[in-house]
Amino acid sequence: MATEEISPDAIALRDRIAKGALSVAQVAEAHIARIEAQDPEIGAFAWFDAAYLRRQADALDAHRRAGRAIGALHGVPVALKDVIDTARIPTENGSRIDAGRVPGQDAALVQNLKAAGALILGKTVTTELAFMDPAITCNPHDPARTPGGSSAGSAAAVAAGMTALAVGTQTNGSVIRPASFCGTTGFKPTFDAISTKGVLPQSPSLDTVGVFARSPREAALLCDVLFAQVRAGVPVPPPGLLKTVQAGAPVPPTLAVLQPPGWDRAETETKDAFAELTDSLGDQAFQLVLPALFDQAEEIRRRINLAEMARCYHRYASNDGLSEGLRAAMEEGNAILARDYIAALDWPGILNAALDEIFQRCDAILCPAAPGPAPLRDTTGDPVFNGLWTLCGTPAVTVPILQVVDLPLGVQLIGPRGGDARLLRTAQWLYDWVDTAGETE
Amino acid sequence: MATEEISPDAIALRDRIAKGALSVAQVAEAHIARIEAQDPEIGAFAWFDAAYLRRQADALDAHRRAGRAIGALHGVPVALKDVIDTARIPTENGSRIDAGRVPGQDAALVQNLKAAGALILGKTVTTELAFMDPAITCNPHDPARTPGGSSAGSAAAVAAGMTALAVGTQTNGSVIRPASFCGTTGFKPTFDAISTKGVLPQSPSLDTVGVFARSPREAALLCDVLFAQVRAGVPVPPPGLLKTVQAGAPVPPTLAVLQPPGWDRAETETKDAFAELTDSLGDQAFQLVLPALFDQAEEIRRRINLAEMARCYHRYASNDGLSEGLRAAMEEGNAILARDYIAALDWPGILNAALDEIFQRCDAILCPAAPGPAPLRDTTGDPVFNGLWTLCGTPAVTVPILQVVDLPLGVQLIGPRGGDARLLRTAQWLYDWVDTAGETE
Repeated sequence: MATEEISPDAIALRDRIAKGALSVAQVAEAHIARIEAQDPEIGAFAWFDAAYLRRQADALDAHRRAGRAIGALHGVPVALKDVIDTARIPTENGSRIDAGRVPGQDAALVQNLKAAGALILGKTVTTELAFMDPAITCNPHDPARTPGGSSAGSAAAVAAGMTALAVGTQTNGSVIRPASFCGTTGFKPTFDAISTKGVLPQSPSLDTVGVFARSPREAALLCDVLFAQVRAGVPVPPPGLLKTVQAGAPVPPTLAVLQPPGWDRAETETKDAFAELTDSLGDQAFQLVLPALFDQAEEIRRRINLAEMARCYHRYASNDGLSEGLRAAMEEGNAILARDYIAALDWPGILNAALDEIFQRCDAILCPAAPGPAPLRDTTGDPVFNGLWTLCGTPAVTVPILQVVDLPLGVQLIGPRGGDARLLRTAQWLYDWVDTAGETE
Repeated sequence: MATEEISPDAIALRDRIAKGALSVAQVAEAHIARIEAQDPEIGAFAWFDAAYLRRQADALDAHRRAGRAIGALHGVPVALKDVIDTARIPTENGSRIDAGRVPGQDAALVQNLKAAGALILGKTVTTELAFMDPAITCNPHDPARTPGGSSAGSAAAVAAGMTALAVGTQTNGSVIRPASFCGTTGFKPTFDAISTKGVLPQSPSLDTVGVFARSPREAALLCDVLFAQVRAGVPVPPPGLLKTVQAGAPVPPTLAVLQPPGWDRAETETKDAFAELTDSLGDQAFQLVLPALFDQAEEIRRRINLAEMARCYHRYASNDGLSEGLRAAMEEGNAILARDYIAALDWPGILNAALDEIFQRCDAILCPAAPGPAPLRDTTGDPVFNGLWTLCGTPAVTVPILQVVDLPLGVQLIGPRGGDARLLRTAQWLYDWVDTAGETE
């Protein structure tokens, strides 16, 4: 079966496999062909092995043929950022220091994926230790531009159609920013909604696992599987994300339009495109102004990030294989005082108290996902519109509905903590609304 | 009714009130008489008002006469350490800086007590901001000696029979040590088993609310009320402590006898008395040696305590009303680096992994509650045998079953986190066993 016959839609793909219209072996071959054709140029994969894919596909097809019940992602391809431990498969964390590192155990989320029958495509490129140093990956829309960071390979692989779904992580803006630059949906759920067990810890108060997909609906499909975890000895109830998204919004959602802290760094074209979008939302949108204390959030988030990173990356500190940029950040982290760090930890609670009030009046906050489209590859871009929501632990999703100078730009929606299902439903509404609006113009 | 007719046993008292054999007004008058007679010498109360007691008693008696259901502590006197917020009643935290401070709201645990019909006796003396500077309270066994700290007044009030029950807090050894010095039972439950909402925060990773009573059984009565709380939106199930203690141990418990880190600071008489006790336990006791890494626990606990105290007491720092000792400790805390603080926070998990193994083999760990009996009043005594268990968050209870140079000395039992009911049952077994052994000698 030729590559182009495999739907890029993860839900359609899942349904065709489940019905028997498509074997997992066919899905695997199509993806092997795509990756071998495209990845030499894009550089999204840190580890890829066609034989490994074929073995998985054979096992999944045999499982199905034996008449056994199939999982929610049976045969659906998922790529994993290379900071997520995979048993017997290299996990090098984007660092020369971890070259050749092979974990003995799967991360908790990989166990979830395997139990759901997902086809694990391979490991995607991350920046060095999921920090800011640009990686080798190119933006599929323009090879001279960055795909963003740190989940560079996951975003690029989904954007290029080399995988339907991918998993990444965000400690500052490492899911939302690359999704925006690459023109995919990116979803960073509520803090701790997906287990970080077996994922490289950089800043445990901020580290959040997130996903990449074409649409919010497909992100929901993947997250229904990833959200399963046992917390404090009790299994978390199924989130029902896909079901909520598919049910649709009962009434058109109300959106709070925000010019977030750091707005002066937004490019003029971004401001114009965003204003045009929000104008066309009419009565469904209202302008939101955040209290002044939100202006300090970035400094607070950075303090927590650097202090915890100095601790978490301690074992890398004495190694020559560390980049200058990361070394400097760790030195800054090493000098932070405990009292300032502890004071910073009070902030998410304070900020969320203010946000909870706002979420009484709207379904989601709306703002650009980045100050502009992907810059050139000497940077991974500016996460200025992302870090606040990572600090607050609120779910955030970006949908690829804007276009600036022929490059994609995401629009970010933010919901209250725990409101992941409704946020994805709202994001899907916006995604479909732009589509429909485009058709009727 | 004369003072001596009121039983000092909280459970007997509760039962007599419940049956109607005793009115709360009678209980209140008896306690007013005791406190007015004894407290001028002992100095256990920071705030006491006979009229306030009489008003409560009248309301409680009227409630009962109206035929309404009565709470689990109806009419039972409870005294509160003066770091626990009480609405419209001074809460001065043992600090000149907080002189005249009157909270608008009750701490969560005070709400529990009021809902259970407890007779709130008054506020007990704490050392300055629950730290190490000796308070005015005297040890009821010898006025020249310390009652211990920081819950000095709560321990002394129970020991002197001025209250059946009292609440305190422990961040290092502030419940177990004063209970040992004063000859009462002291119980520090599992970390976070009792809400600290409305209790002066000194070091939120360590601060633990605990109780004083004559016996473990009576501590269980009080804690059944105090443990009620809503955590992460879900009510914690009732712990059933008293029921478990009253059911008794099905078989005689097995105890792991420990010479804890800092053993060289124990007095010879303490070592002798403890050896005699453990010898007489025969096959029920075995010698336990902790891994060497436990030797670092005190340094780790201290680092967490001082770093968090520097943050929590920031508002006191610039005030002249602070003692030199506390000021020096805060300066030390101010200098602690975030990475060292964060590293220290990993330790409870590491130590508990080792303890969990040990608790497979015994019902409780057994060690002295303090290196010796109460020293003179220029210190609050040495918490060296207490801080480890506060760091680990494991429940600890001391029972007043040893006597050294005519002064009481407690024996401490430690159980696994969450094992509060079984630990109190084991402690009650030991308390009764010593009683019985004494009678049959």
